Amino acid sequence: MTRTVNIDDLRRRARRRLPRVVFDFLDGGAEDEVTLRRNRQAYEDIRLTPRILKGGTVDLSIDLFGQKFASPFMIGPTGLNGIYWPKGDLHLAGAAEDAGIGFAVSTASNSSMEEIAQRSGGPLWFQLYPWGKEAFSRALIDRASEAGYSALIITVDSLVGGKRERDLRHGFAHEITMSAPIVLDGLMHPGWLKSVWLSNNRPRLQNLVAFLGERASDKELADFTRSQRNPHFSWEDVRRIRKQWNGPLLIKGIMCAEDALRARQEGADGVIVSNHGGRQLDGAPATIDVIGDIAGQLDKDAKILLDGGIRRGSDTVKALALGAHGVLLGRAPLYGLAAHGREGVAQALSILEDELRRTMIFVGCQSVRDLGAQHIAAMKTGVAGPG
Amino acid sequence: MTRTVNIDDLRRRARRRLPRVVFDFLDGGAEDEVTLRRNRQAYEDIRLTPRILKGGTVDLSIDLFGQKFASPFMIGPTGLNGIYWPKGDLHLAGAAEDAGIGFAVSTASNSSMEEIAQRSGGPLWFQLYPWGKEAFSRALIDRASEAGYSALIITVDSLVGGKRERDLRHGFAHEITMSAPIVLDGLMHPGWLKSVWLSNNRPRLQNLVAFLGERASDKELADFTRSQRNPHFSWEDVRRIRKQWNGPLLIKGIMCAEDALRARQEGADGVIVSNHGGRQLDGAPATIDVIGDIAGQLDKDAKILLDGGIRRGSDTVKALALGAHGVLLGRAPLYGLAAHGREGVAQALSILEDELRRTMIFVGCQSVRDLGAQHIAAMKTGVAGPG
Amino acid sequence: MTRTVNIDDLRRRARRRLPRVVFDFLDGGAEDEVTLRRNRQAYEDIRLTPRILKGGTVDLSIDLFGQKFASPFMIGPTGLNGIYWPKGDLHLAGAAEDAGIGFAVSTASNSSMEEIAQRSGGPLWFQLYPWGKEAFSRALIDRASEAGYSALIITVDSLVGGKRERDLRHGFAHEITMSAPIVLDGLMHPGWLKSVWLSNNRPRLQNLVAFLGERASDKELADFTRSQRNPHFSWEDVRRIRKQWNGPLLIKGIMCAEDALRARQEGADGVIVSNHGGRQLDGAPATIDVIGDIAGQLDKDAKILLDGGIRRGSDTVKALALGAHGVLLGRAPLYGLAAHGREGVAQALSILEDELRRTMIFVGCQSVRDLGAQHIAAMKTGVAGPG
Amino acid sequence: MTRTVNIDDLRRRARRRLPRVVFDFLDGGAEDEVTLRRNRQAYEDIRLTPRILKGGTVDLSIDLFGQKFASPFMIGPTGLNGIYWPKGDLHLAGAAEDAGIGFAVSTASNSSMEEIAQRSGGPLWFQLYPWGKEAFSRALIDRASEAGYSALIITVDSLVGGKRERDLRHGFAHEITMSAPIVLDGLMHPGWLKSVWLSNNRPRLQNLVAFLGERASDKELADFTRSQRNPHFSWEDVRRIRKQWNGPLLIKGIMCAEDALRARQEGADGVIVSNHGGRQLDGAPATIDVIGDIAGQLDKDAKILLDGGIRRGSDTVKALALGAHGVLLGRAPLYGLAAHGREGVAQALSILEDELRRTMIFVGCQSVRDLGAQHIAAMKTGVAGPG
Ligand SMILES: Cc1cc2nc3c(=O)[nH]c(=O)nc-3n(C[C@H](O)[C@H](O)[C@H](O)COP(=O)(O)O)c2cc1C
Ligand SMILES: Cc1cc2nc3c(=O)[nH]c(=O)nc-3n(C[C@H](O)[C@H](O)[C@H](O)COP(=O)(O)O)c2cc1C
Ligand SMILES: Cc1cc2nc3c(=O)[nH]c(=O)nc-3n(C[C@H](O)[C@H](O)[C@H](O)COP(=O)(O)O)c2cc1C
Ligand SMILES: Cc1cc2nc3c(=O)[nH]c(=O)nc-3n(C[C@H](O)[C@H](O)[C@H](O)COP(=O)(O)O)c2cc1C
Repeated sequence: MTRTVNIDDLRRRARRRLPRVVFDFLDGGAEDEVTLRRNRQAYEDIRLTPRILKGGTVDLSIDLFGQKFASPFMIGPTGLNGIYWPKGDLHLAGAAEDAGIGFAVSTASNSSMEEIAQRSGGPLWFQLYPWGKEAFSRALIDRASEAGYSALIITVDSLVGGKRERDLRHGFAHEITMSAPIVLDGLMHPGWLKSVWLSNNRPRLQNLVAFLGERASDKELADFTRSQRNPHFSWEDVRRIRKQWNGPLLIKGIMCAEDALRARQEGADGVIVSNHGGRQLDGAPATIDVIGDIAGQLDKDAKILLDGGIRRGSDTVKALALGAHGVLLGRAPLYGLAAHGREGVAQALSILEDELRRTMIFVGCQSVRDLGAQHIAAMKTGVAGPG
Repeated sequence: MTRTVNIDDLRRRARRRLPRVVFDFLDGGAEDEVTLRRNRQAYEDIRLTPRILKGGTVDLSIDLFGQKFASPFMIGPTGLNGIYWPKGDLHLAGAAEDAGIGFAVSTASNSSMEEIAQRSGGPLWFQLYPWGKEAFSRALIDRASEAGYSALIITVDSLVGGKRERDLRHGFAHEITMSAPIVLDGLMHPGWLKSVWLSNNRPRLQNLVAFLGERASDKELADFTRSQRNPHFSWEDVRRIRKQWNGPLLIKGIMCAEDALRARQEGADGVIVSNHGGRQLDGAPATIDVIGDIAGQLDKDAKILLDGGIRRGSDTVKALALGAHGVLLGRAPLYGLAAHGREGVAQALSILEDELRRTMIFVGCQSVRDLGAQHIAAMKTGVAGPG
Repeated sequence: MTRTVNIDDLRRRARRRLPRVVFDFLDGGAEDEVTLRRNRQAYEDIRLTPRILKGGTVDLSIDLFGQKFASPFMIGPTGLNGIYWPKGDLHLAGAAEDAGIGFAVSTASNSSMEEIAQRSGGPLWFQLYPWGKEAFSRALIDRASEAGYSALIITVDSLVGGKRERDLRHGFAHEITMSAPIVLDGLMHPGWLKSVWLSNNRPRLQNLVAFLGERASDKELADFTRSQRNPHFSWEDVRRIRKQWNGPLLIKGIMCAEDALRARQEGADGVIVSNHGGRQLDGAPATIDVIGDIAGQLDKDAKILLDGGIRRGSDTVKALALGAHGVLLGRAPLYGLAAHGREGVAQALSILEDELRRTMIFVGCQSVRDLGAQHIAAMKTGVAGPG
Repeated sequence: MTRTVNIDDLRRRARRRLPRVVFDFLDGGAEDEVTLRRNRQAYEDIRLTPRILKGGTVDLSIDLFGQKFASPFMIGPTGLNGIYWPKGDLHLAGAAEDAGIGFAVSTASNSSMEEIAQRSGGPLWFQLYPWGKEAFSRALIDRASEAGYSALIITVDSLVGGKRERDLRHGFAHEITMSAPIVLDGLMHPGWLKSVWLSNNRPRLQNLVAFLGERASDKELADFTRSQRNPHFSWEDVRRIRKQWNGPLLIKGIMCAEDALRARQEGADGVIVSNHGGRQLDGAPATIDVIGDIAGQLDKDAKILLDGGIRRGSDTVKALALGAHGVLLGRAPLYGLAAHGREGVAQALSILEDELRRTMIFVGCQSVRDLGAQHIAAMKTGVAGPG
């Protein structure tokens, strides 16, 4: 038995526990996974400057829209969290609360946003997929407001689905189709099979049940979801939502300064720089490769979050040094959840926090709010020669 | 059984179905295959900027010389298409017609240009290898004109043969020499053996039969082909052909602005930026690495096509964004043909079209005619540091 | 039996002789070992310009603080040297003396600094970990002064521990915890087991014994060490030590010009550019990537040493050409020690000296003191084209 | 049985036929073989611009010092050619003569320079290792002059031996030491064993026999060779030799413009840009990486040759385009020799000539004397973005 010392250990554990079709949904990206890999490689290409003797107490906390977070992490919105562990969303929310950080509930969550809000005391945000007709999002936003969600995220990078080839090969499309190899694969992962698949509460898109009625079958819900994709969603719609929602509004999926500025114009309070973890447009840049440009052009009041490829505490230092105010975690806590349930999420969060804290001391910075370009070492690949 | 989700799946399937000597002719490149690999890698090195909320309807169609194409793809000219599937040229033409795109018939086709023209209603172009004496090309051009081909391509990058080492090792040179390993290899691919090799219509260079008579043997045709190489073909000859041919004329094999400008001076209506799929000069740049410079120097009226390494819809977006008006597909549809005949070609085309459509939405562009440099993300390898 | 021709041979030999837990402590780095690898790769990326006919006699000697060293190497401070070979520190000191170079004794040595000083006639420096309360370092410095150490190094890059994941997996933390796999591993390395582990003189942190008393157990010493980490150590403390210590003072762990300048301001006579061999902040630059900038900004009188990744004589030429006055060896002599005891250390030193001497002739430089930027070939990755 | 289509095939064949100790002497480089690999990789990093319709007749011939060479290749000087094939030097000379190109005889040849001159009618140059006392080189130069050698090369990059670790591991140092593994290895290569090792004419350093007498043993000759290394050889000595030798004089081993200019000042007629095939200073640049700078600074009359890593015809095109007037072949013909004797050398030369000819047509250049920077494609790694 090997000890869990980093996020990759949790990923390995998750791979063993989950049937392949489920692991690949969690782990995979679009097409050749160029962006997925680049999201990671880009961090490795960045060097931090070690600074010495700057004092050992470090303040990791940040403020976002008047709320205090114990550290600059937040668990980002991910759908189908129930297919890794029963009641996955609740465990994510619980672990986030314990860690003093926020949790973003996805439109495609497997517990209803109301249930999550009831059971969790931590800062909760709601992520809206702008699917379907106006009525669809209007209803969801009203419910989020009602349930006390403190901020609203509109994810705009998924107007069409990404071409995730691992899923296509498994025939997975928001629901698990029962083919022979899928069944076999499931049988070989009895822990998962029993707790997730054969349980009385097979994961469903609980936020959507309201639209189809309690008796809607898995297939009906999945069909409904797919049918709701609305590639015509536009800035007009953002404006409408802006009017409906009184709290902080963030646009998720922004990858260039022009779109970020437009989001601000339309009244967004912040942007989430994201390529959806490499799951939508393969060939998109790594988020850390564009954050600097975006942060450089936005006004001081705009809140800038980033996600994609965060697997180490030092990744967060790099993101904040280049202009982000906080980062969202996608797969990292999900690997933990899939590996060990809530305990695993807690492990993921504490690994990252521990790494972050060390890194802060190594770069000689006493508050994550003070991170800046001075902490990044200018890269001179190769060498300085005389000419 | 794995599903076919991308072009590479078709390639894998083709590799299984074909004897090695045939697959290697299709798949291989010159010498160390540096250019062959670079043709692909260069696309991976380019990032596209995701843009959001720009509307979901996408127009893929282009106009070339007054003809409408449903998408910016065209099946490029390739010789010996009959060695993958009986009547390969007809299947390529048919699938292209169904997809609303053009098809370019090679001088070295295995169905005569007349037969192809008769059986296909789609836009057809004829590709001329400027072999042999003046009389040779004069006769072919007259036939192409007669048969109703709408544009003429002169391929000028093959005045001598590329050094394709896979072919040299197999002893393959436009005909299959029967050595013991070749025979054995054939026997192990019975599907191919029966349909292609043991059929009554073994593939022959049908356009050339007219020159040698119906009874010409395979060997005579191959010898004839080889004997016709004319390394002295020159711009003078282009001028002569320009006079003979009334329709649109394109020069294929151009890799620098200087040659492109000269082609225009000599009356060509367009150029095809091509390194012959890495099959001629190993060490040539990738076409996508030079397209920008060429497009930047040519006049507005010149039509610019590109081929080489197109395996993803997003490759096409990159080519058009950097200045091409359309792309030719070499191996992609051939993998489909070799895998599943006409059905496979159709699959290849629809995979690429689907990927193209998604990518257009992800980069927020509503017509392929509007693609431009603004869709390419400036690459900053590594990172921006303070100094 | 293969001959030992380079440092890597000694490393391989060490890996065979040591239990994994011990080898990994010696060999490993922090987190993903990005910095550890970069420390090596950076040297490979630098080219030296061969110069011809400049004479064959080479002077390798350097002066540091009035002391003459036969070559620009020095054995750097490393803790727990006794776990590779009984009395490891004494063998390192002995081999260094024989080679006419210096040896730096670590706070965490396994022979007391007094014993080492008594048994060695070579130049000895003492390296202080600024652990614990003021009294702790005050006592150690007094002892070093008493024992005749000629220079004092304060290592400032370890105010918190690096996250060395190999050690974490083995459960190694300055002491070897007896788990089943560790025991088994030990049993399979009988040479090591008998001489190091089952000997009467199991390695202890001898410099610290004075603080806890002769009877302190391994565990007590390790606990004490860990408890002494002081992340609040600051420039104030440096100033205090500067006052206490009359000899040359060096700050080790500096990685940017700003810190180097500050060290000078606080009265340090020199700096050691070091990332602790990639064992602290993963993501720090290679030392050879920053030495040029640091050397360019420091005053003429400052002594600049460098360590990290030195495995070849030519690495030293590069370091000196870019501004260092000498280099410290961390793992290189330790591999020798672990492989063959004192004999192995001597081998490591003579391999490096031989390589250094050849390289000096190849670059046409007659004294290591004359090395400069002119010996580095400007890198033009790829090629010079016309435009 | 695979066909031989390129130089690498000959290398593979040589590896099979030779005992490892011999193959490694031929194939290997210094230390980590960074320069050896870079010598090859650098060519792969350079792109040639294909040009079209420039005519198919190509003139490969060059003139050097009033002598005509059928192509820009020359077989470079290599020692111990007799250990691959009996009378290796004579076969190299013969094949060079047949191909109309020059051959450079090494000081360390296994046939005496007189015998080679007698048996060969091609252009012959003599390469002098400036070993030993003045008398040593004086005698050799007189003999070269007497025997009719048309040019003299002084190799200046070997004043000390390179650290070739493959040789060190085999215990090979200009003679083969008989250890058990070496004997075994020899027994497993009976073709080589019988023809080379057990023959009556075991290879000896025939040019040196004159110094020690006919009865000198292998060991005495090898000891003599090693003892003659003279690291103090200097520009003074060059000046002396310049006075003694009336024909064209070249300095081999030059890697920077400064040394090239000095060589001209001292009266050399040309330089050979060489890093000794990566066998001396590991970490030296590839020759193709420095040729441009050197050629740019030398006067028009200076002849510039280059060697190192030439394995393809296109490598030669690149070298000439960047400023060389011709290239020397080291290992390429030796692989041929070791594989098939004289026949193999002829194969190597004709492969390279054929590749060169094709490449010339592809880049649209009618004479190797017209190659220039315009044939190199400017590299834009990655892509051109908008900004
Ligand atoms: C399995 C999975 C499901 C996801 N579901 C959603 C979702 O429902 N809504 C959303 O806005 N983003 C979703 N995302 C994207 C994440 O919010 C986030 O952008 C991405 O995972 C960040 O990259 P990382 O996984 O490398 O941290 C999902 C990502 C994954 C991996
Ligand atoms: C098997 C094969 C045969 C080809 N035959 C011809 C031909 O007859 N005429 C021609 O102009 N180009 C020919 N080409 C080149 C293609 O037209 C095209 O330039 C190239 O295949 C594009 O690269 P891609 O295969 O990576 O798409 C051939 C290519 C292949 C792979
Ligand atoms: C096993 C080991 C123990 C070390 N212990 C110490 C130490 O006690 N004090 C210190 O200042 N540095 C210590 N270091 C760091 C070295 O002094 C030096 O900075 C580093 O090893 C240089 O990199 P290299 O090993 O690649 O040569 C240690 C390094 C290693 C590998
Ligand atoms: C086995 C071998 C022996 C050599 N002997 C000599 C020699 O005696 N004199 C000399 O000037 N160069 C000698 N060289 C260097 C070659 O002349 C030439 O610089 C080098 O081989 C060129 O690189 P290449 O082998 O990659 O073509 C030798 C090279 C090899 C591979």
